[in-house]
Amino acid sequence: MFQQAGRGYDMAITQFSPEGRLFQVEYAIEAVRRGTTAIVCRNQDSVVFAVEKKSSELALSIGSEKIFKVDDHIGVAIAGLTADARVLVDRARIQAQVNLLSYDEEISVKDATIHICEYKQAFTQNAGVRPFGVSFLVAGIDTNGASLYLTDPSGAMWGYKAFAIGSGANEARTFLEEHYKDDISDDELKLLPLKTLKAVMGDALNKESCDVAFILKEDKVFRLLSNEEKEELLKKI
Amino acid sequence: MFQQAGRGYDMAITQFSPEGRLFQVEYAIEAVRRGTTAIVCRNQDSVVFAVEKKSSELALSIGSEKIFKVDDHIGVAIAGLTADARVLVDRARIQAQVNLLSYDEEISVKDATIHICEYKQAFTQNAGVRPFGVSFLVAGIDTNGASLYLTDPSGAMWGYKAFAIGSGANEARTFLEEHYKDDISDDELKLLPLKTLKAVMGDALNKESCDVAFILKEDKVFRLLSNEEKEELLKKI
Amino acid sequence: MFQQAGRGYDMAITQFSPEGRLFQVEYAIEAVRRGTTAIVCRNQDSVVFAVEKKSSELALSIGSEKIFKVDDHIGVAIAGLTADARVLVDRARIQAQVNLLSYDEEISVKDATIHICEYKQAFTQNAGVRPFGVSFLVAGIDTNGASLYLTDPSGAMWGYKAFAIGSGANEARTFLEEHYKDDISDDELKLLPLKTLKAVMGDALNKESCDVAFILKEDKVFRLLSNEEKEELLKKI
Amino acid sequence: MFQQAGRGYDMAITQFSPEGRLFQVEYAIEAVRRGTTAIVCRNQDSVVFAVEKKSSELALSIGSEKIFKVDDHIGVAIAGLTADARVLVDRARIQAQVNLLSYDEEISVKDATIHICEYKQAFTQNAGVRPFGVSFLVAGIDTNGASLYLTDPSGAMWGYKAFAIGSGANEARTFLEEHYKDDISDDELKLLPLKTLKAVMGDALNKESCDVAFILKEDKVFRLLSNEEKEELLKKI
Amino acid sequence: MFQQAGRGYDMAITQFSPEGRLFQVEYAIEAVRRGTTAIVCRNQDSVVFAVEKKSSELALSIGSEKIFKVDDHIGVAIAGLTADARVLVDRARIQAQVNLLSYDEEISVKDATIHICEYKQAFTQNAGVRPFGVSFLVAGIDTNGASLYLTDPSGAMWGYKAFAIGSGANEARTFLEEHYKDDISDDELKLLPLKTLKAVMGDALNKESCDVAFILKEDKVFRLLSNEEKEELLKKI
Amino acid sequence: MFQQAGRGYDMAITQFSPEGRLFQVEYAIEAVRRGTTAIVCRNQDSVVFAVEKKSSELALSIGSEKIFKVDDHIGVAIAGLTADARVLVDRARIQAQVNLLSYDEEISVKDATIHICEYKQAFTQNAGVRPFGVSFLVAGIDTNGASLYLTDPSGAMWGYKAFAIGSGANEARTFLEEHYKDDISDDELKLLPLKTLKAVMGDALNKESCDVAFILKEDKVFRLLSNEEKEELLKKI
Amino acid sequence: MFQQAGRGYDMAITQFSPEGRLFQVEYAIEAVRRGTTAIVCRNQDSVVFAVEKKSSELALSIGSEKIFKVDDHIGVAIAGLTADARVLVDRARIQAQVNLLSYDEEISVKDATIHICEYKQAFTQNAGVRPFGVSFLVAGIDTNGASLYLTDPSGAMWGYKAFAIGSGANEARTFLEEHYKDDISDDELKLLPLKTLKAVMGDALNKESCDVAFILKEDKVFRLLSNEEKEELLKKI
Repeated sequence: MFQQAGRGYDMAITQFSPEGRLFQVEYAIEAVRRGTTAIVCRNQDSVVFAVEKKSSELALSIGSEKIFKVDDHIGVAIAGLTADARVLVDRARIQAQVNLLSYDEEISVKDATIHICEYKQAFTQNAGVRPFGVSFLVAGIDTNGASLYLTDPSGAMWGYKAFAIGSGANEARTFLEEHYKDDISDDELKLLPLKTLKAVMGDALNKESCDVAFILKEDKVFRLLSNEEKEELLKKI
Repeated sequence: MFQQAGRGYDMAITQFSPEGRLFQVEYAIEAVRRGTTAIVCRNQDSVVFAVEKKSSELALSIGSEKIFKVDDHIGVAIAGLTADARVLVDRARIQAQVNLLSYDEEISVKDATIHICEYKQAFTQNAGVRPFGVSFLVAGIDTNGASLYLTDPSGAMWGYKAFAIGSGANEARTFLEEHYKDDISDDELKLLPLKTLKAVMGDALNKESCDVAFILKEDKVFRLLSNEEKEELLKKI
Repeated sequence: MFQQAGRGYDMAITQFSPEGRLFQVEYAIEAVRRGTTAIVCRNQDSVVFAVEKKSSELALSIGSEKIFKVDDHIGVAIAGLTADARVLVDRARIQAQVNLLSYDEEISVKDATIHICEYKQAFTQNAGVRPFGVSFLVAGIDTNGASLYLTDPSGAMWGYKAFAIGSGANEARTFLEEHYKDDISDDELKLLPLKTLKAVMGDALNKESCDVAFILKEDKVFRLLSNEEKEELLKKI
Repeated sequence: MFQQAGRGYDMAITQFSPEGRLFQVEYAIEAVRRGTTAIVCRNQDSVVFAVEKKSSELALSIGSEKIFKVDDHIGVAIAGLTADARVLVDRARIQAQVNLLSYDEEISVKDATIHICEYKQAFTQNAGVRPFGVSFLVAGIDTNGASLYLTDPSGAMWGYKAFAIGSGANEARTFLEEHYKDDISDDELKLLPLKTLKAVMGDALNKESCDVAFILKEDKVFRLLSNEEKEELLKKI
Repeated sequence: MFQQAGRGYDMAITQFSPEGRLFQVEYAIEAVRRGTTAIVCRNQDSVVFAVEKKSSELALSIGSEKIFKVDDHIGVAIAGLTADARVLVDRARIQAQVNLLSYDEEISVKDATIHICEYKQAFTQNAGVRPFGVSFLVAGIDTNGASLYLTDPSGAMWGYKAFAIGSGANEARTFLEEHYKDDISDDELKLLPLKTLKAVMGDALNKESCDVAFILKEDKVFRLLSNEEKEELLKKI
Repeated sequence: MFQQAGRGYDMAITQFSPEGRLFQVEYAIEAVRRGTTAIVCRNQDSVVFAVEKKSSELALSIGSEKIFKVDDHIGVAIAGLTADARVLVDRARIQAQVNLLSYDEEISVKDATIHICEYKQAFTQNAGVRPFGVSFLVAGIDTNGASLYLTDPSGAMWGYKAFAIGSGANEARTFLEEHYKDDISDDELKLLPLKTLKAVMGDALNKESCDVAFILKEDKVFRLLSNEEKEELLKKI
Repeated sequence: MFQQAGRGYDMAITQFSPEGRLFQVEYAIEAVRRGTTAIVCRNQDSVVFAVEKKSSELALSIGSEKIFKVDDHIGVAIAGLTADARVLVDRARIQAQVNLLSYDEEISVKDATIHICEYKQAFTQNAGVRPFGVSFLVAGIDTNGASLYLTDPSGAMWGYKAFAIGSGANEARTFLEEHYKDDISDDELKLLPLKTLKAVMGDALNKESCDVAFILKEDKVFRLLSNEEKEELLKKI
């Protein structure tokens, strides 16, 4: 069975097809599409992350494997290969420290994202490596207020007000387009990603099957919610 | 479906076909042809850029992903892979700084373009990499006045008075050939790229679906227009 | 016979399939599935390891080839290729020493695991190497109490209270889900992995065909049990 | 369509065929054959270059993309891939400077050509690169008077009195063999390349569709003619 | 004939099959199975090696090509490719010297074996090399008394009291299982490997067709027996 | 047409065939067989070179592309790829200078040849390069008198009194075997290579279609003959 | 014809077949089998080499291409690719010098052989190279008296009293087994290799078609015989 599946795809890593497409990048995007759903929303001043989490009887939360802190003021929610994500998060963290040491100021959300993008792009143009199989929703608060960027396996980036990636992305985006308002308050913002996740996951959503993180205008500090906090939020939706 | 499409193209990266063609370069040019339309026009003293922009309900402009500033006096409009473009723009920016530091004068538009060309060429002759899937319209103002160059994935370059690349290139070039005049005034010049884009995009053109930038003889400084400025221009065409 | 078997699998090391899968990583996981069974359980303060051991008339135990000490306070039980495991254990040991020298404190169980994960991930993204064909159950006691992590050939990690890997993993996990209690005492904990192994191996389980190790709250020191100690435990189950 | 064409050629970069041929080099020569026509003639003391130029309504001459100055006393006319030519011209320019600095004398036309040849040869013998898809007519005036060399993609070189390369090479060479005289005067020499180009291009030849350059015995300095100068010459033929 | 045989095996060096197997390692083990038989036995204090030796009229013993001294207190008997074995023996010898110089004590038999294992493993995980086609029975006397380890082409290791490798391994192991006693005396130990070899080779066994080496508790020094000594032993079996 | 021809040969660069042959080397020898004819003869004290030369109406001799001076006392006549030959001649020239500087004496003809051989051999044993497609007849006068060596694409060498390579080699060798005498005088020696070339080329031989060089005992200095000198020789044969 | 022959063999350089064989090494041994015959014999104190030599009317002996001096006291006779042999002889010569400089004593024949073996082995285990297509009979006199070793393309080595390699090896070995005596005198030893060569070559053996070298106990110095000396020996057989 593996054999049949395994032989069909193309062996060229860094080449264009006659139509000008890069298949390895498109296949890596498939890895993202098969990942758990991740949702991030922002208003002018705050950012809220929510992700689906696979859980089992014997499993224990070890922080989150789908939401990572890059710096105090920046977090990422990911969809795709977790092990790939960790490599990129490590690089982003180091870059944030380098920026602080070099310029004596915190890295902007945009610069942190561009740094991730450039690293991803290199893995689409060189032989001997494969693209990163992971998309990032990078969000945080800097001197320009709150911002949110998507970067995919090609290394391209886009700005968003609210966005979703992973297996439930289509449903989630439709929900967000209907429910996101430009003047959304922090209280509403805290609930919107979870409400969206509810639309995707239905009754499977509970405090064990999701992770939620905030970066709020009060303190501008990334914080992963405890099970108790998640439960409280879940009651409100 | 992917499999069928994926297996048809040639696996040799840097080889000539018996007809003396380099397929990977031609395929990379296909990536440019599939990109959004970009148009740049110049007269003796000024340069105007306009590009098509994909937008959605939740997306937010993050500067522009299709028009980049290389230096105060030089900009580029691109068609093709944005992530590839960013790598080349970064190199061009560094080269502009190096030139300033080494010779105490701003890099000429032509030298900046040649630098991009040489980097692109290397990616067509060496194994282990693919060509850059992006064409650049490099334009700016230097001591020779305004100039505009095209460079494609092969690393070749050409000089133009006005030119268009991307999916709408053919329509746009026909429009430009009809409407460009050698003695075009700055006021007309500001509108010509947008008018051309209108010919390509029709009613889909609005302030959200395009980006416009100027480098004008008054200050010789690259400037990306705001939504308000774009709206004002759109009213005039 | 070899030839038939040998030709069926896919030759691309680090590429995505059109479905976004990495076959080499999935095949490496098969090597884990074919390995001997390994089980690790923990409560808040202590950790117990048990593994199946192949033995023969002329063989002699040489320590254990399936349970390794990483540092005084951390051990691993492995399933898959022993020779691959040794490379990773060596790296983990060195990292533990580096941590001690650099920060003057023992490495946390989580950090030791992350280090292993990152090394594994690199072997899934670069050409010229194959993934490590081994999964690790890393467990130990640090300032956060006892903890237990699984890391597989992809370099991903998960936290667990009790878990099993190798050829008997499914049976063992079912057994653990039924018999593990959150408030399990140290005395019960010492027996649970062996009881689970009994469920997998049946009458084949004896002091020669298993290895057992403890890291207990009394001394927080990894210790591989002697044949006598194993026999004593086996009497109790 | 691309696919059919793309799959027929041979994948081995630097290997001999059983007949002792190097196909990649022969294919690169095809790229030269598809290029625009270039013609160079010399007498004892002077050199004249003429090349066909593709032009369009919106294009602007940017110097010439088919005639390059290597040093004050040496120029080249090329046929084939312009981006490849630029790499070689850059190397030749640097070598000319190195020669001046090292020996305090201008590089001879022959030494400049040999330098280009050796660089080209290396790209026919090593894997991981392709041959340069360009032929050069290198000509200039040094202490031996005027000289003219051809170097093709293999890195071989030949001496000539007058020669033509590119798509119109056969017609042009026949014309040159008929009209070239060993005692040709400078005045005749200035016209011969253009006359030859006329034989190839017919009515398509005009001041926009060609470039002409001189290195004459008066000043021994490479000079690209202006549109006015070209027009004057064209009247005379 | 070669062609038919040559084309059937798999071309991927360092990859997993869908079943999680590494064919190149399994094929290398075949090279071991085709090798001459090697047998090593130990009791608590002493070690005895015996190997089959191919001989001919004109050949002369040059030491032994199947038993090597690693250090005064450690020897190896090998089955498989002799030229591969030499590379590993050289490394082991150097490591023994390094250990002596670094720690001022002789390397333990186990550490010497682990060093060999790690080197072997690297040749199973990296492209551009093949696994070592040789198994080692490493035996010697250190502060823990006598010990004996097997290491195969994968780099895995096992401890034994007595073991055999090579083409006669199955017969030899059966013989050893029947005749090895845990309390075997040195006098019996000296004969057991040869007796086992007799069971494999039958009448072909003579002083020219075998090599024997001792590391005995008296002096703990590796010694290859002379033809006279071998003859004397052969009389006793 | 190219395609058919191009696909038949073997893709492995540096491998043996089952018969123990190296096809790439044999194919490179084909390139030599397709080359122009080169002939070198010597007696005890002098050496004479003659080669066929392709010429055309517009071509001009540029020294010779088939006879090269290595040092004052050593020359080579080549058959095969001229661009490959140049690389080897350059290396030989440098080696001659190095020898002079290091030992304060001229390099011997044999040492110069060995140096070329070793460089050629390396290109038959390593992947990523192809063999040199050229054979050399290296000849000169050193302290041992005159000597002449052949080296082919494999890097092997042979000593000769007179020899021929290239497309007319067979005819030429037959002629040489009939006409070469061990006690040949210098006057006869000067004519023999040209006479041999006449036997190969017939009426096509004239002063434009050959090159001749001498290293004579009078001055022991390599000298390429002028057209006048060649004409004089041709009259005598 | 080439094509058919060329396509049948296996493309994998450094891999095992399912039977545990290394085809490239076996094919390299075929190159040895196709080589000219080489024979070396020794007694306790002296060594004699004899090899078949291809000769032609115009060829001249240039030393010998099949017997080489490694050091004053060591020589080699080779069968297979001469150009490959030269590389190995050069390394052996350098190693002999290094030994002399480092330890102030001549390298032993065995150590010189081991050095060659290790270099050969590396070319059987790494990708990007092919094995050496040559076998060596290394012989000489050192403090242990005379010794003779064979090393084949795999890098394995064997000790012999007398041995033959190359196309006539089987006949020659049969002859040697019949005629070699352990107490052979120097006078008999000087003739035995030539007698053996006579058995292989029959009437084709004469002073031009063989090379002979001695290392005798009188002076322990390698010496290649002159034509006169060979003639004298040939009279005696």
